[in-house]
Amino acid sequence: MDTTPHPADTDLPNRFRRQLAAFLDEKITHLAAVDGTFADAAATLSEFVLGGGKRIRPTFAWWGWRAAGGSPEGTLTDQVRQAISSLELIQASALVHDDLMDSSDLRRGKPTVHVEFTELHRAKGWLGDSERFGAASAILLGDLAWMWAEDMFFTAGLPPEVLARGMVHWQAMRSEMLTGQYLDIYTQVKGDESEAAAMRISELKTAAYTVREPLLLGAALAGASPEIAGVLHRFGADIGIAFQLRDDILGVFGDPEVTGKPAGDDLREGKRTLLVALGLRAADDTQAAVLRGALGNDALTDAEVQRVRELFTELGTVAEVERRISTLTDGALAMLDEAPLEPVAAVALRDLAIAATSRSH
Amino acid sequence: MDTTPHPADTDLPNRFRRQLAAFLDEKITHLAAVDGTFADAAATLSEFVLGGGKRIRPTFAWWGWRAAGGSPEGTLTDQVRQAISSLELIQASALVHDDLMDSSDLRRGKPTVHVEFTELHRAKGWLGDSERFGAASAILLGDLAWMWAEDMFFTAGLPPEVLARGMVHWQAMRSEMLTGQYLDIYTQVKGDESEAAAMRISELKTAAYTVREPLLLGAALAGASPEIAGVLHRFGADIGIAFQLRDDILGVFGDPEVTGKPAGDDLREGKRTLLVALGLRAADDTQAAVLRGALGNDALTDAEVQRVRELFTELGTVAEVERRISTLTDGALAMLDEAPLEPVAAVALRDLAIAATSRSH
Repeated sequence: MDTTPHPADTDLPNRFRRQLAAFLDEKITHLAAVDGTFADAAATLSEFVLGGGKRIRPTFAWWGWRAAGGSPEGTLTDQVRQAISSLELIQASALVHDDLMDSSDLRRGKPTVHVEFTELHRAKGWLGDSERFGAASAILLGDLAWMWAEDMFFTAGLPPEVLARGMVHWQAMRSEMLTGQYLDIYTQVKGDESEAAAMRISELKTAAYTVREPLLLGAALAGASPEIAGVLHRFGADIGIAFQLRDDILGVFGDPEVTGKPAGDDLREGKRTLLVALGLRAADDTQAAVLRGALGNDALTDAEVQRVRELFTELGTVAEVERRISTLTDGALAMLDEAPLEPVAAVALRDLAIAATSRSH
Repeated sequence: MDTTPHPADTDLPNRFRRQLAAFLDEKITHLAAVDGTFADAAATLSEFVLGGGKRIRPTFAWWGWRAAGGSPEGTLTDQVRQAISSLELIQASALVHDDLMDSSDLRRGKPTVHVEFTELHRAKGWLGDSERFGAASAILLGDLAWMWAEDMFFTAGLPPEVLARGMVHWQAMRSEMLTGQYLDIYTQVKGDESEAAAMRISELKTAAYTVREPLLLGAALAGASPEIAGVLHRFGADIGIAFQLRDDILGVFGDPEVTGKPAGDDLREGKRTLLVALGLRAADDTQAAVLRGALGNDALTDAEVQRVRELFTELGTVAEVERRISTLTDGALAMLDEAPLEPVAAVALRDLAIAATSRSH
């Protein structure tokens, strides 16, 4: 059983980054020929895409492709790499629009796109409202990222029948992401504190969009058998949930140095995570009042964040979420033996699953 | 020379509307199976798409296809009709995002999407800020419209080589639209009052996005010769500018009953049109102060709008813009004889050009 990675399997995030850099460079050159002003704005988007991110979606897609028999020695490797690198542009679009919707100031430790354009407007002393200019710029650049994602995917040079197989998952991914985003804001305004709502958002925004559909997209490009696709589907769904639960814990307990976001940012945003749902269920009235007072409170102090952390720990909520992460991860890892995945991919998926769901706080 | 329309050439807007209705119905049914909440929100988008609009972009695309020899008797008619109907969804996305960026309250005489969701939030007494919910909903529904445009175009069932020919223009169209939108807000914040800036925005937002590229998209789907494509390119560019100049006049002089927008809406929005650029150039200091006081003034009264109208008339600005519209239209109509376009399409394009650019105030 050969589990030695091919050279093309190594250093994946940088390979995707280079693919994106070449694509964006060409697009911005083309844009500059039409209009220099928008090309300058688009350069900010390009820096955002190239400047950070773990390239997790293309990485899952790559291993989905490899798991289903896609070979770096074949003739389609470059085309597949371009097609799946485009997932980073969908994500860039989602982040730029999401940061605007949430009025988030920071992303990856830097000003968010709408804040950057708001500050540019202010610094230049331009006419009109700075925040309005920032918001409009972020809307248009998010739209541009989405358009470029499509360009990158559809012009990757994949044969039509391969493209058609992948398109199903490409579309499902984006549809589920938007559904999850809407459900997220809807749940917040409705004040829905249920476990069911929290889990539904995790399923859509992370399990489906971040893990399952990228895996299945890659697998479809390789022409996966139903058996292999079935295993990847279930594996992706469970690892995706576990990954989101880990993220929920980091959103409250994470170190700002590591996450690039202020401590307890999820609390300030009022995110209705499973952690919150379980915490509220276990809390007495006094404890629930502390939690509810923290959720969506922009002015939350570090000391108050610390108080909420202690509460989640005392109530056993963190332990319960950790238990679920372990159960989901263990179950998913066992699935990897249920289908004849390419051995090198099975090993890589195991490592990825562990990395995405394990403690880092 | 047979200039009799085929039955498929008649009642085009309703044909596109039916195609859109069938597509949207299927998409919303699919979405409802994933999540009823987002499906409800998407139904608002669907009503917006089906409820109005002159279907001008698919109409130009249809006649581009017919001009280049596309035949309703052929096997691809339904596929072409679906592919070009998708342009209405790009436009829906652009309008939903644009209305949000401009903080416009009305579109086609009805509340804009962000206003509708703001009011829904307020009426239901949901948690948090109503306007923020409205804005977030509009961002996500605009994104959804864009995604559906792509689905509709790429799954229309066109053969891969036909799709590839059309894709060039499909992408150019969207790129030029976003560039035009950005340049529009940029010109406003910079206070750029030049004729050059006004013309550049018209070229991108209307000539390229609304007329030229839809025509060329249709022509490409029919496999147009370079000769035919060249004529349609020049015809579309000129008619597109003329169309925008007509729209600029209507934006100041139009009857709210006809336009669905408040009288003088372009003035309140502070749009930097050619009308404004020429007016400012001809105005003395007092007149220029009146114009500048009106531009971007949300609180502009009907009497003040009337004063600006009189000014544009006195200064000869309206006459000058009318003269340019006539010159562009006459020149474009003459071009229709320069290439062997299908006669029925040449007649239809002539009628369309006249309808899009002639006086209605």
